[in-house]
Amino acid sequence: MQVEKKRVDEYIHETTDFIARKVDEAGAEGVVVGLSGGIDSATASALAVEALGADAVHGLVMPTGVSDDENMSDAERHARDFGIGYDVVEIQPVVDAFLDGHPNGVDDTEAVGNLAARVRMCYNYLVANEDSLLVLGTGNRSEMLVGYYTKYGDGGVDILPVGGLYKTEVREVARELGVSEDVVEKTPTAGLWEGQTDEEELGAPYADVDDFLRAYVDGDASVEEAGDSAGIGEETARRLVDLYQRSEHKRKTPPYPGFGR
Amino acid sequence: MQVEKKRVDEYIHETTDFIARKVDEAGAEGVVVGLSGGIDSATASALAVEALGADAVHGLVMPTGVSDDENMSDAERHARDFGIGYDVVEIQPVVDAFLDGHPNGVDDTEAVGNLAARVRMCYNYLVANEDSLLVLGTGNRSEMLVGYYTKYGDGGVDILPVGGLYKTEVREVARELGVSEDVVEKTPTAGLWEGQTDEEELGAPYADVDDFLRAYVDGDASVEEAGDSAGIGEETARRLVDLYQRSEHKRKTPPYPGFGR
Repeated sequence: MQVEKKRVDEYIHETTDFIARKVDEAGAEGVVVGLSGGIDSATASALAVEALGADAVHGLVMPTGVSDDENMSDAERHARDFGIGYDVVEIQPVVDAFLDGHPNGVDDTEAVGNLAARVRMCYNYLVANEDSLLVLGTGNRSEMLVGYYTKYGDGGVDILPVGGLYKTEVREVARELGVSEDVVEKTPTAGLWEGQTDEEELGAPYADVDDFLRAYVDGDASVEEAGDSAGIGEETARRLVDLYQRSEHKRKTPPYPGFGR
Repeated sequence: MQVEKKRVDEYIHETTDFIARKVDEAGAEGVVVGLSGGIDSATASALAVEALGADAVHGLVMPTGVSDDENMSDAERHARDFGIGYDVVEIQPVVDAFLDGHPNGVDDTEAVGNLAARVRMCYNYLVANEDSLLVLGTGNRSEMLVGYYTKYGDGGVDILPVGGLYKTEVREVARELGVSEDVVEKTPTAGLWEGQTDEEELGAPYADVDDFLRAYVDGDASVEEAGDSAGIGEETARRLVDLYQRSEHKRKTPPYPGFGR
């Protein structure tokens, strides 16, 4: 689904206002953002540069042993393209320190992937606390609805500039902002383990996932209707609904008796 | 303010139901909880034992260099009193690994205190991910309203059994559950740095802070009226209001354009 040029312009205007206002309200000096080499962090950081100026945006490039060199050089190239100052922080020594200190050892790949995302969050906040910055999140609506992020990891941020945009819409905004076509067209991956791609895990291209979620979550279509209109099979449709329902806890603050139960 | 016995019993019943239901809904095997030696984690874990049985509750005792030995032995004694299995995990090596990897070094005590809280969160989730547990939070309503916790640190949890109780109410529940009087009467501290106490930072005893927040937040009293009824000075009242307002972002999910702005 193509977002019209007019809507893209309006979105950019609204979002740069939002970023500037939130930084101002917090009495902060700017934002810190983890740059992964992917389109979401490229778009979020480009919006922040537009809102605040490049000097008020600090990038952290945080490779693990798992991340490939190509993503990190894309992250650094993007920072240079937009005039964003950045530091490179190797997170593997910290991940190793966690695992060394764990009483029973950890052999769960997903748990270690989540840990890496949380270590990045901790670094974002160390820099944010020291330099009086907000942590700029990079999550988009597609990921948020299927819970495709780590709770208190990449989900642990202060503001979410592209949180209202589906993945396919992020692409339109990225192009308008002049994000490198290599980054826009790159196969999306959370980088949690070698060879992982979002679309393989979700079972459909983002264009179809987004059509499904728009119909099912934003609209009032049934699973079957939304699956038909998105052109995805029933099994994939049911898997997406399951991901949506099971990730509800990630989109809410922690419940307590009498609240959020 | 004294909570009546009947209300305490009702609260305990409601909360154990809540814990059991949340664990069941998540398809989890139980809960993991960080035990600090303080009253909040003692009460939350005692409620979990009542709800799930001691075998379904796993404790993590996570001292730093800053924590005193007394708190940690209180934590271990509490675990033994309630039959909670636990591991001791030293977090200082992980904190040091973070600081070693930081590009510019960190000399902000508060930033390091927040980091320690986030490291504990990461360990809670490592254990939770591996053993299919929920992370049991220990925050109470007093702390939540003044933002007296680390965002994505001790605030990074799945459920908050005592999240609806003011600190003074937690004491009543703790006594009813048989938590050690040493722990109930201990001077509350977040343990972020040596010698830190909550009440010194807040500027009033919790009994007064709670009376103020009840009148100002839960009721419709003005700052002046709430301050008078709680018997605290205007300066302290204004500080509490300031803490309440400035911590609003901690009690919400991250905002994005069109949502939560």
